[in-house]
Amino acid sequence: MSKFTGYRCSVCAANYGPDEVTYTCPVDGGNLDVLLDYEGIKELSVDDLILQDEPSLWRYLPLLPVSNPGGYGTPLRAAGWTPVFSPTPLEEKLGLKNLWIKDESSNPTASFKDRASAVLLARAREIEAEIVVTASTGNAGAALAGLAAAVGHKAVIFAPKTAPPAKIAQLQVFGAKVLLVDGNYDAAFDLSVQASKEFGWYCRNTGYNPFTAEGKKTAAFEIWEQVMKDSSIEHQFSIFVSVGDGNIISGIHKGFKDLLELGLIEAVPRIFGVQSDESAAIANAFNAGSEEIKPVSATTRADSISVDMPRDGLRALRAATQTGGAYVLVPDSEIIASIAELGKVGIFAEPAGATSYAGLAKAVSDGLIGPDDPVVVMNTGSGLKDVKAAMQAAGEAPIIEPTIEAVKQFL
Amino acid sequence: MSKFTGYRCSVCAANYGPDEVTYTCPVDGGNLDVLLDYEGIKELSVDDLILQDEPSLWRYLPLLPVSNPGGYGTPLRAAGWTPVFSPTPLEEKLGLKNLWIKDESSNPTASFKDRASAVLLARAREIEAEIVVTASTGNAGAALAGLAAAVGHKAVIFAPKTAPPAKIAQLQVFGAKVLLVDGNYDAAFDLSVQASKEFGWYCRNTGYNPFTAEGKKTAAFEIWEQVMKDSSIEHQFSIFVSVGDGNIISGIHKGFKDLLELGLIEAVPRIFGVQSDESAAIANAFNAGSEEIKPVSATTRADSISVDMPRDGLRALRAATQTGGAYVLVPDSEIIASIAELGKVGIFAEPAGATSYAGLAKAVSDGLIGPDDPVVVMNTGSGLKDVKAAMQAAGEAPIIEPTIEAVKQFL
Repeated sequence: MSKFTGYRCSVCAANYGPDEVTYTCPVDGGNLDVLLDYEGIKELSVDDLILQDEPSLWRYLPLLPVSNPGGYGTPLRAAGWTPVFSPTPLEEKLGLKNLWIKDESSNPTASFKDRASAVLLARAREIEAEIVVTASTGNAGAALAGLAAAVGHKAVIFAPKTAPPAKIAQLQVFGAKVLLVDGNYDAAFDLSVQASKEFGWYCRNTGYNPFTAEGKKTAAFEIWEQVMKDSSIEHQFSIFVSVGDGNIISGIHKGFKDLLELGLIEAVPRIFGVQSDESAAIANAFNAGSEEIKPVSATTRADSISVDMPRDGLRALRAATQTGGAYVLVPDSEIIASIAELGKVGIFAEPAGATSYAGLAKAVSDGLIGPDDPVVVMNTGSGLKDVKAAMQAAGEAPIIEPTIEAVKQFL
Repeated sequence: MSKFTGYRCSVCAANYGPDEVTYTCPVDGGNLDVLLDYEGIKELSVDDLILQDEPSLWRYLPLLPVSNPGGYGTPLRAAGWTPVFSPTPLEEKLGLKNLWIKDESSNPTASFKDRASAVLLARAREIEAEIVVTASTGNAGAALAGLAAAVGHKAVIFAPKTAPPAKIAQLQVFGAKVLLVDGNYDAAFDLSVQASKEFGWYCRNTGYNPFTAEGKKTAAFEIWEQVMKDSSIEHQFSIFVSVGDGNIISGIHKGFKDLLELGLIEAVPRIFGVQSDESAAIANAFNAGSEEIKPVSATTRADSISVDMPRDGLRALRAATQTGGAYVLVPDSEIIASIAELGKVGIFAEPAGATSYAGLAKAVSDGLIGPDDPVVVMNTGSGLKDVKAAMQAAGEAPIIEPTIEAVKQFL
């Protein structure tokens, strides 16, 4: 008996059966939420809900709309179940009693996006789609290419021809077929959708395929299991997430809604979206008190969250408005400075990963977060993904003569 | 009662008490092996030897010459316990029945070196050394800087001024004091030792501080626990390790010797060292049947194993000669090609990480390894550490017009 019972459109709330649609709402193009058989799942005990022997996101298989993808002994089985750190120096600096940072850099391809790609591939195997496709210049593409390679599926990646050669190289190392499109990201997106229809490839595009959010929701399950479940803290938790297309924050929101539906938590934590003020489409809507998201001309240095028109904007907005959270804007200078702040406690983040911490600092100084609020900050990707940003954050090292006198002088 | 009972020189076999020496043998400068109270440890059951609740190298604390370093909730507690993958396509390609790849890229700073730095910091905390120092241009420096930051210790890194700015940036992001020495790696090494003596800093240098190999030996424990312990395979295992200074292979050898001493294995696996033929100092000695290691002028593209005069050469040589293993040489072209081979099963390695796989392929074609030999290959570092090498391995992607016709034409 499948736990997966269908979809509901996030715009018009229309329901669809599991086999009626594949991607977005046929009526209004809205993103679809995956529906589960919560009553059936509720019959499981907590011990049966979590597969304790799986040190990966597959420990939550009973809560996912897919069957077991196999792939044992491959990187597909190593996605998720990332560590949470509790850096005392940052707690002290921000004046918080309880701060955790969930570090996604230990994922197989070193970013949060492995969660989406892992569950996506499980779905692809279930529907016997041999070839998976996505438009991406960065983490999502690497995650799809790497995990597809892990289980012998073919991946096709459409990237704008302006994408950095280093990121393209990572896709190709994983054996993906990379097509550089003479156009921008939107052109690559549209062409990937068209090719998916034409050739029957299964399309992973963010804010298009409903299963990406189902993969991303596993981060919420882990936050719950690692931090909240056995905690004696009575204050409501707050989660800080950097936001570009909006699919990570909506995935995390979905995870907490699942836990609420199953009676495992009493309330959804407050969810805070953080955007660069140079890529502020969703924050602008939040600040205007509107659900209408208008495109911007994004120029932020944090490439993973640099988005003109968010593909999952509405759900991303609601992740904050429906949970008592908020959207916070930070300048790029604070994002770069936050890379150095996290580095000082041994956590190396890419710009988009450090953005959520920059947002927390802003929220604290604005009084949105107080000393008693327990906070979890997501670092969504490894700093090794963007070493140039690290160079910007780190400054220059001095050159000295190879003598002990020179060392003394420097000290 | 400490399990740490002293040191033995790997050259003259002289014994020293735990407080008699700190680094190398005062008589001949030989590297020191750490001695443990094996009889005392033997009284523990296997269940007490392994702390099952620690998903890190700290699960082997009862087998390490340090007490618990604390640092809970920091990256220090996340080093080690890396996944092993068993990629069927590579087994088929090489004609092997049992192949595992142990992937060290999920370590906190994305390389094997975190093992050494973690145990080094435990020792530093025990002897109350506030400041740690090392000479390094790469992974060892990042590992020391990152894990020192994690537990609030100061790190000083001496690097040759020619080191790549991107690698220096990573050290600085972790808040380490980086001094660029106007000279080569040897000058930086000597200066770090001198500064360590002058200022009382605790020196991590590879092939100098005996505790680095103690950290690195945990990889052997993990191979045993993850692959060998409950295996029904009767053939002797072979381990493939890329070799530069020689400290990783000697650390792994030490780990298996510990297991043998404790009666947990019946024989040490065969250990194979792999070097680039452009950095072949130890392989040259192996091939000459000599224990005299002569310096070379290393020029290999695999920077992490590019070494003129290995600092831990003798023990590295014996890791192969004493276990029935061998040294294997591979050209740089095969190292780069191996990055692509590993990528095709979803594993992204830096050149030094892919070198061990290139060596296995060579050993198979030379008949050193046969179909029934179970093999474990170490990938020592993430491909994100050297994206330029990935670009070399991956080739160029085609540029197409944003039309479905162009896609069809390309396919």
